Amino acid sequence: MAPLPKQTRQWILANPPKTNVQLDGPNATFSLRTTDIAPLADNQVLIKLKYLSNDPAQRGWIQADADADRLYAPPVRAGEAMRSYGIGEVVQSKAANLKEDTLVSCITDWQEYKVLDAAACTPIQEDPAAGIKATHYIGALGGPGITAWYGLTEVVRTTADDVVVVSGAAGSTGSMVVQIAKRVLGCKKVIGIAGGAKKCRWVESLGADICVDYKSSSFQADLAKATEGYVDVYFDNVGGHILDLMLKRVKRFGRVAACGSISTYNDPEATHLKNWTEVIMNRIEIKGFIVLDAFAKGKGPENMGHLRKAVQEGKIKMQDQEETVVQTKFEDIPRTWMMLFEGANQGKLVTELKA
Amino acid sequence: MAPLPKQTRQWILANPPKTNVQLDGPNATFSLRTTDIAPLADNQVLIKLKYLSNDPAQRGWIQADADADRLYAPPVRAGEAMRSYGIGEVVQSKAANLKEDTLVSCITDWQEYKVLDAAACTPIQEDPAAGIKATHYIGALGGPGITAWYGLTEVVRTTADDVVVVSGAAGSTGSMVVQIAKRVLGCKKVIGIAGGAKKCRWVESLGADICVDYKSSSFQADLAKATEGYVDVYFDNVGGHILDLMLKRVKRFGRVAACGSISTYNDPEATHLKNWTEVIMNRIEIKGFIVLDAFAKGKGPENMGHLRKAVQEGKIKMQDQEETVVQTKFEDIPRTWMMLFEGANQGKLVTELKA
Repeated sequence: MAPLPKQTRQWILANPPKTNVQLDGPNATFSLRTTDIAPLADNQVLIKLKYLSNDPAQRGWIQADADADRLYAPPVRAGEAMRSYGIGEVVQSKAANLKEDTLVSCITDWQEYKVLDAAACTPIQEDPAAGIKATHYIGALGGPGITAWYGLTEVVRTTADDVVVVSGAAGSTGSMVVQIAKRVLGCKKVIGIAGGAKKCRWVESLGADICVDYKSSSFQADLAKATEGYVDVYFDNVGGHILDLMLKRVKRFGRVAACGSISTYNDPEATHLKNWTEVIMNRIEIKGFIVLDAFAKGKGPENMGHLRKAVQEGKIKMQDQEETVVQTKFEDIPRTWMMLFEGANQGKLVTELKA
Repeated sequence: MAPLPKQTRQWILANPPKTNVQLDGPNATFSLRTTDIAPLADNQVLIKLKYLSNDPAQRGWIQADADADRLYAPPVRAGEAMRSYGIGEVVQSKAANLKEDTLVSCITDWQEYKVLDAAACTPIQEDPAAGIKATHYIGALGGPGITAWYGLTEVVRTTADDVVVVSGAAGSTGSMVVQIAKRVLGCKKVIGIAGGAKKCRWVESLGADICVDYKSSSFQADLAKATEGYVDVYFDNVGGHILDLMLKRVKRFGRVAACGSISTYNDPEATHLKNWTEVIMNRIEIKGFIVLDAFAKGKGPENMGHLRKAVQEGKIKMQDQEETVVQTKFEDIPRTWMMLFEGANQGKLVTELKA
């Protein structure tokens, strides 16, 4: 066994951004430093990170003018390590119930090693026979999967009678929304919105009746055609212009699950809802939510149970859970994360830390 | 009795506006014409209009690019008479159940005389002893009053535990929201938003704990102070910039009743919601509604009954139902209506047609 490290590199939030994240230059958003690893206290473990989760929500945590009162999680402040979900291996343990070599999912930072209370770690199990990989626990079987389940079933009360549109349909949450809506809930029609023909065909392979390419010059007409007769539910992962267009495509008394707004996180000025009066005229219900609500309401384990059952019954196939796993040098963690905002990933965007 | 008229003047929608309504010039929105009055059929009456209701919603009916599918009432098209709620007197009747000289409220057009089916007219009674004037049936005891009642109680489920903000608080609906929230529901705190010190003091006289002046240079700070600790319910009559600010002042899991957006009706581009991510982060529920929903759900008479009871119990005082009654020559009907968008009215804006 290699000797245990005494230090770890970590990425610090150096300059909280107001608009675009800067990778380089004097105002770079993040900076790299090396810090000592504290000795373990009782019931603590030392984790070696293997995978980092890349989540649009992280952008909200670092917003320059973030008001701590209004965030659902503490903001990351200048000088603090950048927070992230991750998967790692226990390399040292002072906790009787968490042995070395166990694979865990956890809330960590962008660093190589992290000291955590054992209670803050969730042991996970890869299952090659069932097609379950470690990274699925930060994707289809983790936050994004539960977000999709909770949002569809609880927030907008989706049933088989509904026609559903989901934006960001090739993303980690959106791709689960498509599968749950079509293959589990049996929705009448499921329409994806994604960027580029390749992603759209993939979304259709997951069960969408059609996936509309927002990068196409005919997008607006294509969307109108795909949503002819209007739709009951819009699951919004992107906000901005597509949300605006969708306000005209949601049925009278239709429902919008406001899950994300990735198109505006780097440009808060971009939410320009020309069609706002549709909300009034067509009595649209819009409900914001985050996945932590499922857990706060005691629905987390239940929703996770539904997901597992859908997998066991073959309605959701693990081999369909495509991921974009980017082998990343520690120095390049921010660069890989930024791919989220370029729409570079198909399925979950995972940072695999190079040894 | 004066001889019955054979013709009536009427205002026609000449050029449906995309943005601002034009009173004059070659692209004037409305034009005046004279038309024959058809002879009455059985069960019809001829109404002489005395009062016209001025409603922000009328702006939606005439929008140039209105999509009939998406409107809750048929649009008014170019060449058609401008639709309006009104109060008039039956001057000729071929309906056994609706005698001459009866005062009725009705859906009419901007014209002097209107032929209507008797079934489309609701007889009303002035009651000077109780302080009830005819115009109250297009204000506090009519659409605006029911809108306020239904919106508060059904759409956002307001209770005594709630802190409530209402914009357009000096308008016909907003002023009823203030009174119902404070004097009937007994809400913990009621905060109005209105334009100018005079209106704000009036709104406070109706029961608002405080009314914030959106025309003041310190508005944003004043609003933050008035809403310290955040609010449960935002009743939105104005949309646009004030809605955007309020997204930051609504509590986690708070509710927004989207009732109107008068600040953007003449400028649909103006809905610039920089704070949209608050909807997600703070799980805000936004529900659009219109007063017709109360009737469609069979709640209209019930809500009206609640309003009457509140009046009988002295919780809502008819002498408080201030109105801005503008004596108007027929030629000036559009000009009086436009006062809505200038915020010129305190309480219901009523056009009283000059004899």
